[in-house]
Formats: sequence, structure tokens, C-alpha cells
Amino acid sequence: MRNVRAGVDLGGTKIQVAIVDSDHEVLGQARRPTPGQGGPPAVAGEIAAAVGEASAAAGVEPGSLMAIGVGSPGVVDGHAGTVAHALNLSGWEGVFPLGPTLTKALGPPVFLGNDVDVAVEAELLLGAARPYSSFIGVWWGTGVGGAIILDRKPWAGRGAAGEIGHTVVKLNGARCPCGRRGCLEAYAGRAAMETHARRLVDRGEKTDLFEIMKKEGRTRLSSGVWERALEKDDKLAVALIARAIAALGAGIASAINLLDVEAVVIGGGLGTRLGQPFADRIAEAMSPHLFVPERAPAVHAAALGDLGGAIGAALITEPGGSHH
Amino acid sequence: MRNVRAGVDLGGTKIQVAIVDSDHEVLGQARRPTPGQGGPPAVAGEIAAAVGEASAAAGVEPGSLMAIGVGSPGVVDGHAGTVAHALNLSGWEGVFPLGPTLTKALGPPVFLGNDVDVAVEAELLLGAARPYSSFIGVWWGTGVGGAIILDRKPWAGRGAAGEIGHTVVKLNGARCPCGRRGCLEAYAGRAAMETHARRLVDRGEKTDLFEIMKKEGRTRLSSGVWERALEKDDKLAVALIARAIAALGAGIASAINLLDVEAVVIGGGLGTRLGQPFADRIAEAMSPHLFVPERAPAVHAAALGDLGGAIGAALITEPGGSHH
Repeated sequence: MRNVRAGVDLGGTKIQVAIVDSDHEVLGQARRPTPGQGGPPAVAGEIAAAVGEASAAAGVEPGSLMAIGVGSPGVVDGHAGTVAHALNLSGWEGVFPLGPTLTKALGPPVFLGNDVDVAVEAELLLGAARPYSSFIGVWWGTGVGGAIILDRKPWAGRGAAGEIGHTVVKLNGARCPCGRRGCLEAYAGRAAMETHARRLVDRGEKTDLFEIMKKEGRTRLSSGVWERALEKDDKLAVALIARAIAALGAGIASAINLLDVEAVVIGGGLGTRLGQPFADRIAEAMSPHLFVPERAPAVHAAALGDLGGAIGAALITEPGGSHH
Repeated sequence: MRNVRAGVDLGGTKIQVAIVDSDHEVLGQARRPTPGQGGPPAVAGEIAAAVGEASAAAGVEPGSLMAIGVGSPGVVDGHAGTVAHALNLSGWEGVFPLGPTLTKALGPPVFLGNDVDVAVEAELLLGAARPYSSFIGVWWGTGVGGAIILDRKPWAGRGAAGEIGHTVVKLNGARCPCGRRGCLEAYAGRAAMETHARRLVDRGEKTDLFEIMKKEGRTRLSSGVWERALEKDDKLAVALIARAIAALGAGIASAINLLDVEAVVIGGGLGTRLGQPFADRIAEAMSPHLFVPERAPAVHAAALGDLGGAIGAALITEPGGSHH
């Protein structure tokens, strides 16, 4: 066995597992919808099943894995192995011992990290940020998350750094899902964009967004739904994405003016789905706000795509991983 | 002689010199208006005269100083000893060899640093930020400058980090003196506030700001003029300072959400003049925008006051100073 590990990307809509070896080669994978009910125990059970499925695809026994890494939303305590306050997951307001529960079910030791942090660190080690020593990862999905890498090390502050989604881009602006006003996420987060789209439809605006959603068997405007609507040149979708990009440009440029790092990596559900053409549009939207526009940072779409979160979760199980 | 050095704070309106010993005790000081004409040579001449005056007050010969440190606006090249593009100083668009010019006039070696950086580092070593390892300095004056200290070291990025004044706090907002739109400095910088006040007066609004200015023999709304107007409860002054504080609250809270550092130090002409009561108001304005409001950073007025810039400039002449 070549030091085989599992990485789990625990998201609000899906659980993605990758089985990787010491060269970070993906030997097998599995993807399952995140249970919408049953609370943390149901989610833990589904993670265990997905790890089993991915292990089978890789031809290994789950019990023989060196370790399992999990990138999770919410407040992650890596030492205690707990996840709390994961509001994107149903019934996960309290503290749940995810690490011990998975170890009991599967055998191997479990390491927990923040979902965005592990995905951004994967981009540093294996993805779009390899050439850079300092950059910002902006994870554009349901919300807008972020992580900061300075001199090739994560900057965590007092534990909560990287919340670029809650940069105020418009004083007294739109209401954010976090309850505050004018945050970047209020304009660019997929949840806020959906709320805004529904309100505009209630006011009589036309869009195919919700028909595409139904046709795809979704109950939410997923990244795929937005992509399809843009392909069809849906006027409302085009306008809301342009509004999101304007906000991302201002918020990310502000972060660059503050930190002057070399690069920005755009990931997350929407960032990964829309890819480099939209990373380029974000770079364009940043330009008028940059204090040193002649030395703009590079802006890349995340290179590891959908599997980045799971691969990053596997990385934290390695000796020297930043969550040890 | 106890290792005596000079520190020079070169500002748009004044040149402040402090002569300090190795315990950072101030042995003598001088303050002169910055020449409004004659370009860089006139400014260099006035710096030399002020160093002479401060040296005399300290009872030392300028030629016997160990070194002279200068905190300067503009683009500072510490290695070459040049300052370029110092737009707050008259006739200083180009590159001027300030270091060599002062060494030729006075004798001692000259070290150059950025004015805000040296003042913020002085607060770290000797002032309000001593208890913290990571904080943001926000220099609230003609413009809004800043500097970032992480793990007790300045974070410079690619050389231009700390431009918190050009955080976008309002998409499509007010025009900033930098030419961009919606920057924090467009609301909180003294230059922008004066432009705005003049425009409001042209539109018929009443204020005593410009009468106070004339009475004090000023041609600009200095920090002292704003302070006097606030003391007199001048309605326009109160409203514009409240607008500035709202913008500072949003911009600084955004930086805290990104970096999660322990503290904020508010300095600069207005910050120093208005002091802790206004630092407290900024803290209050930050609160609704903080992602982790229950663990808000400490917000302090700069402790070294008017002399902080000059003391900080003297610090860079020490072995181990960050500009060596």
C-alpha cells in the first residue's frame, strides 16, 4: 500500500470523497448527496458510506486507510474532532463529534479542517497557486468564503481570518444572509443571488432560471443552473452575475490593496463551474479599484476543480499538514 | 554620547524632528512648516535646518549624530535613498535623492522609510500596540494610510500593502482624490472631506469650518480646525465626521474580517488630534460589520501622538530596524 488516504469534502449539497496515494494521485472517488434530514448522525453515516464506496473503487479496504481528512463547513475544532454551527447542513447548530464518529465507523484516524482552507491549500500545493508564495483564495459558491496564504503558509489570525465574503462593498447596501448589510456575499453569494432573483420574479421580471432549475430536478439555483441560464443568455441571470462580478471585483481589489499579494485563485461551486473566462471578468472588475493597477495580481480559476476540496482534505492527514 | 540619532517626520504641512537616545528618550525636537515652493531641494534644506535646530535643543552637533531616519510620503526607495511621486509635497513628482542630499548637508548616514510604516512600527515597539503581535495601523489624516503588522513584523506584500484607504466601502460611491470611486479615503480623508464641505457650502449649507480656518490663519481645514468645529457643535462638521467614522468602521471591519488581527491603532493627524473618544466611536461603527463581533479587536488611539512619526523614523536607523 502506498500510503493511501481518504479526503472528504463535506458540502451543503454533496459529499465528495477522493482516495489518494502519497503522490496525490486519485485512486478512486465517490459522490453522494448530503442528507437533508437526520442531522449530523445521518451526515456522518453518509460520509462513511461514501468513503466505503470510494475505497472499493480504489481497491482498498476503508480500515486499511492511513487516515481520513474531512474539510467541513461550520466551526471546526481539529483537536477535539468536532464540528459546530454548520448552518448549511440541516440540523447541525450544535457541536457534533464528527472525527470520533467516523473513526468508530471506519477505523482510521480522522483529521478535520475548514472546507475552504483545505481547498485553498490544495491549490497552493498542487493547483493554480503553485507559482506563488502569497495569494488569496476566494471560494465563490452558496456563500463567498476565502483563505489567505502568506509566504506559503495559511494566515488564520485568531482563527477566523479569510472572511472576504463579509467585506463591506456597499455601505447601507443589500441585506446579507449573515444578517449584516452591504457584504460582498449579499451580492455574489449564490444563496443571496437566488433570494434576489425570486424577489425580482415576484415583482414581475422574466427569467428562465427557475424553469431550468425544475427541468434539472433541483430545488435550488445550483451553479449548473446559473451556467445553463448564462448559456441561454437569460437577461436576469446575465444581470445578476454581472452584479456579482462587480461586487467581487471591488471586494477582492480592496483585499489586494491591503495585502498586495501576487495572485487570486477563484474556486467554489460557481467559481469552478464558470472557470477562467469568469476569473478574467473578475480581474477586469478589480482593475478600476486597484491602487497599483500596473502590477495587478494574477487571477486564476482553481485548477483542481470539483475534486480540490477532497484532495485538500486528504492533504491535512499528511505529516506536516497544517492542521496537525 | 549615548547613541544619539535623529528622526524626521516629513509631512505635507510640517516637518517634525526628534533627537532620541538608545532608550528612545526624546532629547530635543523641532517643528517647521514644510516649504510650499522650491520643490524637493527647498524641503531638503528645511529638513537640514530643523535637524540642526533639534540637535541644538538636545545639546549635540548634527555631525555627531549616529544616523538620521526620515519617514517620507511618496514612493520611498530605501536602498537608493530616493523619494519619488510625493504628491502631498509641492513639486515632488519626480525622483529626488533625499538621503544623499541630507548626508551631504549634515554628515551622518540617512535611512529612509515610508511615513505611515515607521509611525506604525513605533506604536508596535513603544506605543499603543505593544501588547499585540498582530494589528492594523490606520493613519487618518489628509488621506487614509495604513500598515499591517503580523507576528510583530510589517507585512509589505510586494511593497505596496496597507492601502486600507483604498478599500471600496461604497460601490459607485464618492469620487476619491486618487481618482477612483467609493474608496474609504473619499469619505474619511481630510482632503476629500474639505472638498465635500466646500461643495456643500457652495450649495448653501451653513458651517463655521471656514471661519475657524481663517481665524487660525490656515488655508486648509486642518485637524485642529475640525476639532474646534466639533467642540462648537458645528452641524456640518459633526455630520461629515460621522460620515467619515461610518466609512472607517466599514473599511476597518472588512480588514478585520479578512485578517482577524488582535487590534487596530488609529493615528494620523485627525486620529491623533481626536484621540480615544473617536477611536471608540470607530470601534462602535465597526461592530455591526464584524463577522465575529463577540471577539472584536481592541481599538486604540496612537499613544505616541504628534512625535510618533519622528520617533518611528529614528527607529529605522537602529541595527535590526526593518528598513536596513
